Amino acid sequence: MNKHFLSLADANLPELKNERICPSVEPTVLGPGSSVVIDLGNHYVGTLSFRMEPHTEYIDAPVRLLVRFCEVERELCDDYSTYNGWLCRSWLQDEVVNIDFPGIYTMPRRYAARYVRIDVLYTPKKLVLSDFVFTATSAVSLSDLRAVRIDDPELAAIDRVAVNTLKNCMQRVFEDGPKRDRRLWIGDLRLEALANYYTFGDTSLVKRCLYLFAAAERNEHGFMPGYVYENPRFVSGYWFLIDYSLLYVCSLCDYYMHVGDGDTMRELYATARSIVDAAVRSLDSDGIIKAPTSDEDIFIDWCVGLEKKTALHGVYLYTLDLWCRAISAAGYTEDAAYYSDLLSKGREAARCHLVSADGRVVNDRDGGQHSVHSAAWLTLGGVFCEDEARFALDAAMTDENSLKPFTPYMHHYAVEAMLKAGMNKEADAYMRHIWGGMVKTGTDTFFEAYVPADPDFSPYDDRKVNSMCHAWSCTPTYLLRKYMIS
Amino acid sequence: MNKHFLSLADANLPELKNERICPSVEPTVLGPGSSVVIDLGNHYVGTLSFRMEPHTEYIDAPVRLLVRFCEVERELCDDYSTYNGWLCRSWLQDEVVNIDFPGIYTMPRRYAARYVRIDVLYTPKKLVLSDFVFTATSAVSLSDLRAVRIDDPELAAIDRVAVNTLKNCMQRVFEDGPKRDRRLWIGDLRLEALANYYTFGDTSLVKRCLYLFAAAERNEHGFMPGYVYENPRFVSGYWFLIDYSLLYVCSLCDYYMHVGDGDTMRELYATARSIVDAAVRSLDSDGIIKAPTSDEDIFIDWCVGLEKKTALHGVYLYTLDLWCRAISAAGYTEDAAYYSDLLSKGREAARCHLVSADGRVVNDRDGGQHSVHSAAWLTLGGVFCEDEARFALDAAMTDENSLKPFTPYMHHYAVEAMLKAGMNKEADAYMRHIWGGMVKTGTDTFFEAYVPADPDFSPYDDRKVNSMCHAWSCTPTYLLRKYMIS
Repeated sequence: MNKHFLSLADANLPELKNERICPSVEPTVLGPGSSVVIDLGNHYVGTLSFRMEPHTEYIDAPVRLLVRFCEVERELCDDYSTYNGWLCRSWLQDEVVNIDFPGIYTMPRRYAARYVRIDVLYTPKKLVLSDFVFTATSAVSLSDLRAVRIDDPELAAIDRVAVNTLKNCMQRVFEDGPKRDRRLWIGDLRLEALANYYTFGDTSLVKRCLYLFAAAERNEHGFMPGYVYENPRFVSGYWFLIDYSLLYVCSLCDYYMHVGDGDTMRELYATARSIVDAAVRSLDSDGIIKAPTSDEDIFIDWCVGLEKKTALHGVYLYTLDLWCRAISAAGYTEDAAYYSDLLSKGREAARCHLVSADGRVVNDRDGGQHSVHSAAWLTLGGVFCEDEARFALDAAMTDENSLKPFTPYMHHYAVEAMLKAGMNKEADAYMRHIWGGMVKTGTDTFFEAYVPADPDFSPYDDRKVNSMCHAWSCTPTYLLRKYMIS
Repeated sequence: MNKHFLSLADANLPELKNERICPSVEPTVLGPGSSVVIDLGNHYVGTLSFRMEPHTEYIDAPVRLLVRFCEVERELCDDYSTYNGWLCRSWLQDEVVNIDFPGIYTMPRRYAARYVRIDVLYTPKKLVLSDFVFTATSAVSLSDLRAVRIDDPELAAIDRVAVNTLKNCMQRVFEDGPKRDRRLWIGDLRLEALANYYTFGDTSLVKRCLYLFAAAERNEHGFMPGYVYENPRFVSGYWFLIDYSLLYVCSLCDYYMHVGDGDTMRELYATARSIVDAAVRSLDSDGIIKAPTSDEDIFIDWCVGLEKKTALHGVYLYTLDLWCRAISAAGYTEDAAYYSDLLSKGREAARCHLVSADGRVVNDRDGGQHSVHSAAWLTLGGVFCEDEARFALDAAMTDENSLKPFTPYMHHYAVEAMLKAGMNKEADAYMRHIWGGMVKTGTDTFFEAYVPADPDFSPYDDRKVNSMCHAWSCTPTYLLRKYMIS
C-alpha cells in the first residue's frame, strides 16, 4: 500500500452534507403485529429517527420493532424469509431493534431507501410513532447541481433520476451502490466521475478516488485491483481486472482534461503509464492484447458466454487514444508520440484480426462470436471511420444471434459508441428503452440490473438483494448533457 | 405528580460507577452458523463491546450476529422461538445486530448477564471476535462493601450472592430486576434498602426512592401506587397496593432510624402519616383493616388462593409499631402517643378476631384458612409474646394443609418472624434450604422465583422470562449481618 497516495486520498475525504427529510406521517398508534409505512418522497441515503411514546400507559417492556428500508415500493411486501440469493443475506436492509424508553430513537446504521416499513414485533402496550426524520447524506447537494433545460419530459425525467442516482452514490467515495456493494470499483468510478463533471462538478471526490486506487497493490503483471475498500481503513482489492485497470488510466485522463489539474497528473503519471505499459507487454504476436492471467480477469459485461478479447482490445485502444490526448495536453510530448505509434499499430492489428471481411466485428479469431460489445468497443477504440462503425454496430444490434449488452454499464458504452458513429436517433431510442423503461416503473434511482422483459431478474438469483440505486446506471445525465441536448 | 418531591428525588440521582470486566477469551474465528460463549465470571449489569475483524479477507457485507445475554448457564441453550410466557417476549435478552465495519463494536443497550452467547447469522467471510469488555454499572461498588467475617462457608456463599444481587439491582433506583421489571416497587425497595444499610450504606439512593414515591399520585383512599417509573421521566404506577403503601411508611422509618436524617423525615412526614391514616380509616367495626377497594390490592405473596386479610392486618400493626418508634425518636411525641394507642387496639383486635382458641392464626374469620403468611405477619405485628409466636409459626409451618410462602419476598418475612420468635435454628435451616438451595445451582445472584422441587417454575408460564437477579431475594445479607452472625 502506497502511504503517500493514501494520505493524498484522505486529504480529499469529503465532509458529508446532511439533508433533513421530514415525511408527513400522522402520528400512528401501533400494537403488536401492526405496521406503518413511511414514504420519504424520494430515494435517499442516511438514517432514520422517530419518536416512540406510549399511547396511554407507560410501556413496561422494551418495544421490539422490525424496520425494513426499501428502495422501491414493491420491496415493501417482500418476504425476506424466502431469500435464496447467493450474496450474503445480511445485505437485506432489515433491522430488529429494541427500544427501552420513550423518546427519540435513531436507527443504528446508514440505509438506502425511499420507503421505510416498521412492524411492531413485541410490546405489552400500544405505542405511538411520530416525528419521523430521515437524515440524508451525500458528498454533494442538489443546490450544487448545474441547471440545464431539457424540454422533452421523458428525457428530463431520465436526467432527474440519473442525477439522483449519482448523488446518492457520492459518499466517502463514489460508491457502487449505497444499499449493497459499497466498495469503490474502477468501472463505476469512471462513469460516475464523467456524470459528475456535467452535474455536481465535485472534482475533489474524483481526486480522492484516483489516489485510493493509486495506493493499491498491483499484481505481478502490473494491473490494478478492480476495487478497493477504504472504510474504516484502506484495503486493496483481490481481483485484478485488466479492462478496469485501463479505465483507471481513462479516469485520470478525463480528470485532467476536465479539471486541468497538472499536479495530480504529475503525481499519478507513473502509475497510469505503468498500467498502459502492462497492457503493451500483454500484446500477442498479432499485436492484440491478451489477458496474461485468465479471461476471468476481464469484465466488459455480465453477459453469459461473452468472448471478451475483442472488446478488451477496444478498451486498450480507447485508453491509448485518451492517454495520448491527455499527456500531450499535459506536456509529455515525447511519450505522447511513442504511445500514438502504439495506438496506430493497435488499430491496424484490430482491422487485420478482429474485423471480418464483411465489416462485422468478431470476438474470437477462431470461433467468430458476434456481439454488440465488440462492435461498440472497437468503435470507441477508433478502429473505424463513422460509416464503418455504423455498419458494424448496426450489424451487431440487428443480428438476432449476436450477444447484446446486459448491464447498464455496458449499455452506456453502447450508447456512447452509437453517438460516436453518428447514430443519434438510435442512441436516443436506446436510452428511452433502457433508462426510460426504468423511469416508467416509478423509480427514483436507476438499478444495478434491468432486463425490460424480466422485472424479477437478479444476477444473484434473488431480486431482494439487487441494488436499486447503482452508480453505473447514472450516465444518462452525462450522455444527455454532453451530446444530446446541447 | 408532586414536583417538589420529584426535584428532591432527582437531586439524589446517582452517578453510576463503571467496572471494566475483561473475560479471558481467546480471539475466536467464526463463520456463518458458528458461535462463541463468553463467561464474564460473575453476574453483571451493563453493556458489552468487542472487536470484530476479518479473519483474512475484508468482509464485504454487514456481519449479522445474534447476541444473547444469559443470567445463568442453563439459559445458554434455551430455544427462544418456543417462548410461550404471558409477559412480553421483548424482555428476553436476545439482540440481532448488524456490524458494517471492522473495529470495536458496542452493543446498543444495557443487559444483565453472567454469560453471553454470540451466534453468527450471516457473513460472507470468516471473522475474528476478540477484546471482549463488559462495562458493568451499579450505583455502588464492591469496594464500598462493609466487610464482615462469616466462618460458615455456606452462609458466606449466601451472603456473597445476596450482596451481588443487591449491587446489580442498585442502578438509578433500587430496581426490581435488572433484566426485567426495571421499575421501582415499594416491596422490593424496602428489602433492598434494609440490605443496603448493612452492606453498601448508600443512603442517598434510598432517599431518592422515598422521594420518587412521595411524588406519585395517590388513589382516592389515600394509598400509594405499588410502583413508579422514572426513566426517562417520572410516571406514577397504576396499581395501588395497600400493604406496599404501609411498607413505604416502614421504609421511611427504617431510613430515619438508620440515617437519622431529620430533614427528610420532616419533608415526608405528612406523606407517611396520610398513609397510616388511610389504613386507620380502613378498619372495620372489629378494628381489623380491610381493603377499601378489593383484595386484589393486597400483595403479601404470589401464593395462589391465599386469603390476605389477616396478613394485611399484621402489616398494619408492624407498620404502626415502626412508625411509633421512629416518630417518637424524631420528636413527634404527641402523634406517637396517638398511634401507640391505635397499635394497642389493633393488636387486641387481632387477638380477638384473627387467632383461634388453640393459638393458631387463621386467615379468614369465617373459613379458617391456615397459612405461614398470617402467622408470620401477626408475629411481626407484635400480636404475640415469643412463646405464642413460636407456637403459631410452628403450627403453620408443620401443618401440611397450610399455605406456605412462595416468593423469596415472603420467605424473608417468614425468616424475620422466626428470628423475632427466637427460632434461630429454624431460621438458619430455612435460609439454607431456600437461599442455600439457589447457591447450589451455581448462581451468582438470587432469583425472582425459586421452588426447590421445580427448577422450571415460572410465575409467567415460561422460565425463560424469569428474572434471575431479583431485588426481593437479596435479604439474606441483611438477616445474616443483623441477626445471625454477630
